[in-house]
Amino acid sequence: MGTRMELLRTLAQKGSTKMVLLVMDGLGGLPSENGQTELEKAYTPNMDEIAAQSECGMLEMVDIGITPGSGPGHLGLFGYDPLEYRIGRGILEALGVGAEVKSGEICARGNFATFGPGDMVVDRRAGRISSEKNRMIVDRIRNEIREVEGTSVRFYPGEEHRFVVVMSGEGLSEAVADADPQKEGRPMKWALPLETHGEKTAGVVNALVRRVREVLSDEPAANGCLLRGFSGAPVIPGMADLYNLSPAAIATYPMYKGLARLVGMEILDAGRTMEDLFSTLEAHWDAHDFFFVHVKYTDSRGEDGDFKAKREVIEKVDRLMPRLTDLHPDVLVITGDHSTPSQMKGHSWHPVPFLLQSAWGRPDEVLAFGERMVARGIHGRIPACSLMGLMLAHGLRLAKFGA
Amino acid sequence: MGTRMELLRTLAQKGSTKMVLLVMDGLGGLPSENGQTELEKAYTPNMDEIAAQSECGMLEMVDIGITPGSGPGHLGLFGYDPLEYRIGRGILEALGVGAEVKSGEICARGNFATFGPGDMVVDRRAGRISSEKNRMIVDRIRNEIREVEGTSVRFYPGEEHRFVVVMSGEGLSEAVADADPQKEGRPMKWALPLETHGEKTAGVVNALVRRVREVLSDEPAANGCLLRGFSGAPVIPGMADLYNLSPAAIATYPMYKGLARLVGMEILDAGRTMEDLFSTLEAHWDAHDFFFVHVKYTDSRGEDGDFKAKREVIEKVDRLMPRLTDLHPDVLVITGDHSTPSQMKGHSWHPVPFLLQSAWGRPDEVLAFGERMVARGIHGRIPACSLMGLMLAHGLRLAKFGA
Repeated sequence: MGTRMELLRTLAQKGSTKMVLLVMDGLGGLPSENGQTELEKAYTPNMDEIAAQSECGMLEMVDIGITPGSGPGHLGLFGYDPLEYRIGRGILEALGVGAEVKSGEICARGNFATFGPGDMVVDRRAGRISSEKNRMIVDRIRNEIREVEGTSVRFYPGEEHRFVVVMSGEGLSEAVADADPQKEGRPMKWALPLETHGEKTAGVVNALVRRVREVLSDEPAANGCLLRGFSGAPVIPGMADLYNLSPAAIATYPMYKGLARLVGMEILDAGRTMEDLFSTLEAHWDAHDFFFVHVKYTDSRGEDGDFKAKREVIEKVDRLMPRLTDLHPDVLVITGDHSTPSQMKGHSWHPVPFLLQSAWGRPDEVLAFGERMVARGIHGRIPACSLMGLMLAHGLRLAKFGA
Repeated sequence: MGTRMELLRTLAQKGSTKMVLLVMDGLGGLPSENGQTELEKAYTPNMDEIAAQSECGMLEMVDIGITPGSGPGHLGLFGYDPLEYRIGRGILEALGVGAEVKSGEICARGNFATFGPGDMVVDRRAGRISSEKNRMIVDRIRNEIREVEGTSVRFYPGEEHRFVVVMSGEGLSEAVADADPQKEGRPMKWALPLETHGEKTAGVVNALVRRVREVLSDEPAANGCLLRGFSGAPVIPGMADLYNLSPAAIATYPMYKGLARLVGMEILDAGRTMEDLFSTLEAHWDAHDFFFVHVKYTDSRGEDGDFKAKREVIEKVDRLMPRLTDLHPDVLVITGDHSTPSQMKGHSWHPVPFLLQSAWGRPDEVLAFGERMVARGIHGRIPACSLMGLMLAHGLRLAKFGA
């Protein structure tokens, strides 16, 4: 635990103030030909009014020039240094399909694949079977395979050829190289231990792949599987203990619920639509003092490369904002977990705008919520993992440091 | 290796993008009586146009208030934390006279000096003999002294009374105190080991000074020498490995070629004039993907205290800029390695302006390249050693961190 986190843990106090962290996934963007970013171009009278009453600035999510994945992006927002608390691909994929993973369990990303004679991997994606077919195949292996070499296994279907397996038992380890030849037309590459303590797990993984081959031997395409990205749930101190909070997550996508669960938030049933997010917030307003509200679609439309659609998601959030501000949170932060410029169709390294509204702010000259306006805000650029402490301060939840 | 460097090494990928780091040595300045710095006053329509399309900011070269030497200044620009990677005076002087120094070799700065009876040091600079005389004396000792106590030695003439010696052999160490009484009219102070492993080197140094006294005993002024600043080539990971680049240096002065060689750049034959720098860049454009281009004269004229001449150097670079921009680098950075305000006739601690132009930038409101304009740029003030990662990001050379 770093110095700052230790400090926050020492100083954090219970209180009656309410805090809301509204995350628009992939919020940050780049100027298009008209010279404005998605956020700058969006018509956001409500957020602009809040910005005018707020302290503003930019968040450096990981470090200058570094493009964060969703895991590091969110951990930073929750106050965890993403370089200290790392999240493996397997565990993130498991969270994404809604698997609950306990400490000591190991997850892996799976592909259903087509095997030919002599364990040749003919198609690493089994012809990209449909998600429906995937669910049927997962049901088959779920029924047949509960345990391998004394280790219990659970399967979760994903999209197309992808699935997740969670292994649960004594002495499992992440130190295992992928059971995947990486390229097609090559013989199967079996899992190998990367360190001595990975030997047992590598054995379980290879036995599991063989069992799946047996069970699926009559499948025309998905007659086997590959497993990779072995990782366990990271050991992360919970937000409730660290910050003396009762935190709740309002998110519709499994991965973000999973990330929130990792840091000990209570996961509220958030429905499916953007309106549902705000209804959930209203319904649970009295039960918690910290709410993480996650809007996925800004990122999705950015990944699609659709500037206009991303702008429209932001505008829709803006129209819903009065439902949030009518609750009168003591501290309101609006920000993102990383940038997803629609021009880049993916995550980027660009810092993320934020505003923080509270009765104890020093509102700056920022009158509209946009990347370049906010970059001139009173906070300049700060590390994302500093934001949580700033929210607690504005919520009057931190005792004085030193006498 | 620090966390950031380790991170960059993990994420850096090969690519086809081209990056140019144009360093105007000692670029930063202070306002003169007319209220403008050299850079602000200079007529730079080309750089101003680039600035208007760029992300701008200030570089903190080492730390707030710290004046960098040329070594730390450049190492920072190349992405190395100058507080972690330190360069001794001896090695820098050696690089400055064009010596190639291998790992394990030890360099020292030498003065030719006048010795009187009883090893009294009468003149630490031998009456500031001419550089021509210096070269003649170095030729004499080169012919007579190739080896001392089993350690081979190489001599390089410098300006006036200064020279460099490089010692090569087994078991050499930097842990040796100067063989120099520091003041005149005192008896010679012989080299002493600072730690046990410096004993052999101290012995070699003292034997070498005695041999030089013998060889030069008939010289009227330069009849001996002093040696100080013992240092070896630092162990620095190379840029090619760290960043997955093929880096090349275009510099006319030996010290900057030497610094670039230390970090593993290929040293291109850069000619002698400023025009030659740009011709070299054009000629080698296809052969590398990262170019460090070094303009010395901004610093030289600053050191001279000549405001107007420094301004004119900047204007000359600006007139040559189209030759660079016509190559259409994917990422262009223009900056300095430290400030050399002509009012101070030397290096200073003031942060250094930079601009970064790429297709993936968030251009800010900076419309002209000058210290105070750029200080309001979107990057604010960042550590100089962060710049390299930012260039790689804009060159699309860094993978995403975490899933």
